[in-house]
Amino acid sequence: MSVLGGLAVGKEGPMIHSGAVIAAGVSQGKTTSFKYDFGIFEYFREDHEKRDFVSAGAAAGVAAAFGAPVGGVLFSLEEGASFWNQALTWRVFFGAMMSAFTLNLVLSTYNGVPGKLTYNGLLNFGKFEDLTYEIWEFIPFLLMGVMGGLLGALYNFINFKLTQLRMRYITRPWQKVAEAILVASTTASVAFLMIYGLHDCRKIEDEASRSDRYPIQMYCNDGEESAVAAIWFQTPEKSVRSLFHDPSKSFEWLTLSVFFGCYFLLACWTYGLGIPSGLFIPTLLCGAAWGRLTGKLMTLLFPGQSWLNEGKYALVGAGAMLGGVVRMTISLTVILMECVGNITFGLPLMIVLMVAKWVGDFFNEGLYDIHIQMQGVPIMAWDAPPLSNNIYASEVLNRPVTTLRTVEKVSRIVEILKSCTYNGFPVVDSIPTEEEARNFKSYGTLRGLILRSQLTVLLKHKVFNENAHVWESSKVDIRLFRLSYPRYFTLQEVDLTEEDLECTIDLRPFHNPSPYSVVSCTPLPRMFNLFRALGLRHLVVVNDSREVVGMVTRKDLVKYRVWKHRGQMGLEELVIYDNVA
Amino acid sequence: MSVLGGLAVGKEGPMIHSGAVIAAGVSQGKTTSFKYDFGIFEYFREDHEKRDFVSAGAAAGVAAAFGAPVGGVLFSLEEGASFWNQALTWRVFFGAMMSAFTLNLVLSTYNGVPGKLTYNGLLNFGKFEDLTYEIWEFIPFLLMGVMGGLLGALYNFINFKLTQLRMRYITRPWQKVAEAILVASTTASVAFLMIYGLHDCRKIEDEASRSDRYPIQMYCNDGEESAVAAIWFQTPEKSVRSLFHDPSKSFEWLTLSVFFGCYFLLACWTYGLGIPSGLFIPTLLCGAAWGRLTGKLMTLLFPGQSWLNEGKYALVGAGAMLGGVVRMTISLTVILMECVGNITFGLPLMIVLMVAKWVGDFFNEGLYDIHIQMQGVPIMAWDAPPLSNNIYASEVLNRPVTTLRTVEKVSRIVEILKSCTYNGFPVVDSIPTEEEARNFKSYGTLRGLILRSQLTVLLKHKVFNENAHVWESSKVDIRLFRLSYPRYFTLQEVDLTEEDLECTIDLRPFHNPSPYSVVSCTPLPRMFNLFRALGLRHLVVVNDSREVVGMVTRKDLVKYRVWKHRGQMGLEELVIYDNVA
Repeated sequence: MSVLGGLAVGKEGPMIHSGAVIAAGVSQGKTTSFKYDFGIFEYFREDHEKRDFVSAGAAAGVAAAFGAPVGGVLFSLEEGASFWNQALTWRVFFGAMMSAFTLNLVLSTYNGVPGKLTYNGLLNFGKFEDLTYEIWEFIPFLLMGVMGGLLGALYNFINFKLTQLRMRYITRPWQKVAEAILVASTTASVAFLMIYGLHDCRKIEDEASRSDRYPIQMYCNDGEESAVAAIWFQTPEKSVRSLFHDPSKSFEWLTLSVFFGCYFLLACWTYGLGIPSGLFIPTLLCGAAWGRLTGKLMTLLFPGQSWLNEGKYALVGAGAMLGGVVRMTISLTVILMECVGNITFGLPLMIVLMVAKWVGDFFNEGLYDIHIQMQGVPIMAWDAPPLSNNIYASEVLNRPVTTLRTVEKVSRIVEILKSCTYNGFPVVDSIPTEEEARNFKSYGTLRGLILRSQLTVLLKHKVFNENAHVWESSKVDIRLFRLSYPRYFTLQEVDLTEEDLECTIDLRPFHNPSPYSVVSCTPLPRMFNLFRALGLRHLVVVNDSREVVGMVTRKDLVKYRVWKHRGQMGLEELVIYDNVA
Repeated sequence: MSVLGGLAVGKEGPMIHSGAVIAAGVSQGKTTSFKYDFGIFEYFREDHEKRDFVSAGAAAGVAAAFGAPVGGVLFSLEEGASFWNQALTWRVFFGAMMSAFTLNLVLSTYNGVPGKLTYNGLLNFGKFEDLTYEIWEFIPFLLMGVMGGLLGALYNFINFKLTQLRMRYITRPWQKVAEAILVASTTASVAFLMIYGLHDCRKIEDEASRSDRYPIQMYCNDGEESAVAAIWFQTPEKSVRSLFHDPSKSFEWLTLSVFFGCYFLLACWTYGLGIPSGLFIPTLLCGAAWGRLTGKLMTLLFPGQSWLNEGKYALVGAGAMLGGVVRMTISLTVILMECVGNITFGLPLMIVLMVAKWVGDFFNEGLYDIHIQMQGVPIMAWDAPPLSNNIYASEVLNRPVTTLRTVEKVSRIVEILKSCTYNGFPVVDSIPTEEEARNFKSYGTLRGLILRSQLTVLLKHKVFNENAHVWESSKVDIRLFRLSYPRYFTLQEVDLTEEDLECTIDLRPFHNPSPYSVVSCTPLPRMFNLFRALGLRHLVVVNDSREVVGMVTRKDLVKYRVWKHRGQMGLEELVIYDNVA
C-alpha cells in the first residue's frame, strides 16, 4: 500500500519481471550469477509489511493481556496504526485470536487441565455476567465520567510536569537508577505506613470462596485479616478484582480514600521512570478505588436496593479514570466489555468513556499523545488540523531541491548521497544553474523519483552504462533491490574506484516514473490526506509546467499541530528534532 | 474525506469565508439579499456525510437485529463502507450502541419491565454462556468449515442461475407477483407434506422450561407434539434457537435431513424474489440443521461424553453455512460471538468462517458480490486487481476530454452541459483546435477542475462577468453552493435569455485549482489507491508538461475485475451499464 515506502517503487514500475528468478550481479569487477530464493520471507521484505506487524503485535498483546481479541484489534486501530485496510484488519484479528488462544492453552496446561480453554487473559478481573443497570443510573455514571475526565487531566498535568523535570535533570544512568530506587522505597514505605496507621480489619471468610487468596493478619486479631494489606500485598490486578467483586462492606471509607490518594500520586510518579512499567493496571486500580467509594455512597443514599452493586461502580470508575488519562473510547469500551464478559453493560461504559474524554480534552491531551509530543516523534493525526485550510504547499515546501538527471554521473550521485540526508530525489531532464533556479524558482521538469536506498544498490552493484557488457538491464530486477532489504548498503560499503566515479548511471529503468505530485496552490488538508491515506513519505511540488519547485515530507505536515485548552483552540508549529525524524 | 465529493472543492479552495453569512444572489434579474441559516443541518449538506449515514445505518441495523453493536460496526466496515476513518468508527459505534440500547428499552417496556435492560437484539438465539471446546474438536470444526464452503458455493451457484433466469424471463410486475405466490404456496405445501409424511413425535415437556412455545399436536398422539411442525410453525429464528439449545435427541435424523434439503432449495429460490426477504436467518437455519446432524453424528461416534453438545455443532454449522454464502469473516465472527454471548468460542468460529470462505472462494464469489455484479454497480474492491500492474493510465483514460476555458462563454457551458453527461470538467488556459488535439493528443494546460453542479449554480445565479455590478465575487461563497444541495438545479430550471448566453463566466474563483492528477505512465494500482483512499470521482491524466491528455473515472477502474474459479485466476473487463453508473 504505502506506495513509496520500501521498494514499492520498483515493484509497481514498469520493470517487474514476474517469472525471472535469475539475475546477474557485478560485484568487485567479477561477474556473478546467482539464484534468488526468498520463499515465504519475500513478502516480509517491505517496509509496510514491517509496520503491519507492529500493528498486529499491539493487538496480540492486548488480546493476551485482557483476553480481548476484538478490543485488541480496535486498540491497534485507534491508537497505533496510521494506515488500515480490510486485509490488515483480518490478519490482525487472526493474530489477536491466535494470541488469546495460545495463552488460554498454556494457562490451561499450567493449571493442570490442558485443553480446557476457559482461561481468558493474563489479567483476570473476574466476570460480571449478569450485570445490568437501571435507566436512571445513567445520571451517576455521567457524573463519574466527568470525575474521570477531571482526575485524568490532573494526572496528565502532573505527569507532564514531572516528565519535563526528568528530561532536564535526570539524564545520567545512575540518576535514573537512583530515582527508580527512590520510587520503589517510597511506595513500600507508604504501603507499610498505611497498614500500620489504618486499622481496617475484617473477618476471614471461608476458604472455598476465595481459594486463590492468602489472608494477611498484620496488626489484626486472630481470625481477621487486614483489608489494607489485602489491597497492597496482592498484585494490582487482583486488587482490581477484589474491588470489583468483593461483597458490600468489604472496604472502609477511610481505607479507600487514603489508598486512592496515595496510589494516584505514586502511579503518577512511576509512569515515565526509566523502567518498563504499565499505565493500564495502576490507572484502573485508582479508578476502581474511587468508583468503589461512589458505590458506597450510593448504598448510603439508597439503602437496601437489590440492584445496587458496589462492584459495578468500581468498574465504571476504573473505566472513567483510564479513559480520562488515555482518552481512548471505542477500543477501551470493547476491551472492558470483553474483559468482564458483559455485553449489556457496553452502552454505559461507552458513555462514561466519552464524557471522560470530552472533559479531559478540555484541559489537555491524552497521556500517550503528551509523551509522543515530548519525544518529538512526527506522528500524523487522523485529520488535517482544522485551521490549516489557508496553508498552501508553497508555504510548506522545502527549497532548494536536490535533483538528479535522468542519466547522472556516478561522482555526482556519491557527492549528493554524502552531503545530504534526504531519502528521495526527484529525477529531472536537466538541472538549471544556480542562478536560473533562483530566478525561476524551479529545478527542472519532473521525470520521476528515486530513493537513496535504490541509488546505493545501483552503486554497489555497479550498474553503470559503461559496464553494460557485463550485465543486461533486463536482468536487474526488483529482486536485486529486495535482496538487500532491510540493511541497505551504506556509502562506506560501496567500493568505488577512480574509474568508476567517471561512469554514468541511467536512472530511467529504476526510478518511479509516476511519483505523486501536487501543484503549489494545493491546500494543506489535501496534502495531508495524500500522506495519511497512501502512507507517503515524499511529495513533489510542481508548478503549472510540471517543473519541480519543492519537496514536502511527512515532517513538514506534522509540525502544524492544533492545541486545545480550556475551550480555546489554535495552530502552532512544532519543532521536530532531526535525529528522530 | 472524499475531497471531490460534493462541494469540498469550494470548501478547501481559496474562496472560503468563515465569517460571512450574507450573500447576494441575482435571480430572475432581481437582486435579492438573504441570510443563510443552516444551523446544525449545515454539516449534513455534503455527499460524504450522506455516505457516512448509510454506513451508520447498516451498523445500527445489525446492532438492533442481533444485539451486536461491535459486530454491526465491523459489518459496516467489512461489507459496506468504501471509506473509513477513526472519527467515522466512533460515530458509527455510538449509533450502533444507541440502536441496541433503544431496542432494549422498548422491548423491556413491551415485556412489562421498563428499564430492565436485558433484551438484546430482535433475534434472540439464546445464550451459550459456558460453552467451551476441547482442543481436538478443531478437526470436526475444520471439516464443517469445508462443508459450509461447499454448500455455500452451491447455494450461490443455484441462486446465480436462478437470478439470470429471473432477469431474462420475469420482468413484468404481474410475473413477479405470480412467482412470489408460487414460492409461498410451494413452501407451505412442502411444509405440510413433511409434517404429514414424517411421523416424528416427541413428548411435550413441562410448560416451565418452554414458556414461549405452543406445542402442535398434528398427527401425533395426545401428550405428544410433532417435531416437524415445531420447526416449521415457529418463526425461523425460534427454530434456530431450538436447534441450538434443545436437549439431545429432540430431533430425528430423517426429520433434520429432509428439512435441510427442502429448506436449502426453498431459501435459494426465495432470495432474489421481488419481495423484501432476508438472507441471514434462512441461511443460519439451514446451517443449524446440518450442524445439528453433525452433532448427532458426534454423539453416535463418541457416546456418553459430557462435553458433547449437539447445539454447539448446530452453532458451528450455522456459522459455516452463512460464511460460505456471504464470505464474511471478522464481522460475522463478532456478530455470532455477541449474539450468543460467548467470547471463548470466538476462535473456533473464526477458523470455521475462514475455511468456509477459502473453500467457497475457490468456486465463486460471495452472494452479495454476485448480485452487485449482476446489477452492474461500479463498486470498488479493497485492493487493486493483482494482475493490473501492467495496465497504465494511458490505456484506461477517456478521450477526448471536454475542457472549459478559465474564462468561458455562457453559451458554450450550456451547450456542453446539454450535450454530455460528465460531472467533472478540467479547466484549461486555451482549448486547442480539433486538429491540434488529434496531433498532440493534449487538451490544454490544466488549471483546475469544476463540477457540473457548480456550473449550474453559477448559471442559475447568473454570476457573469457582465453582471459584476450586481454582485461582488467575494460575496459568492461556499454557502451559495451548499444551499442548493442535494437538489442541484437541472439545466431546465436555469432560465437564460439570449443576452445571457453572450456573457462570460470567470471560473477561476470557483474551480478547484489543485485537482489530483497523474501522468499517463501511472500504473493502475496507484490510481486505484488514490480513488479508494481519497474517495475520488475524477482523476485528470496529464502529460509531462501538465497538459490534459485524458480523464479517469471510478467506472474505468472498476471494470477491471479479477475472477477466480477452481484455483485459476484471470483479469476481465466488465461491461458497466451507463444508467446506474
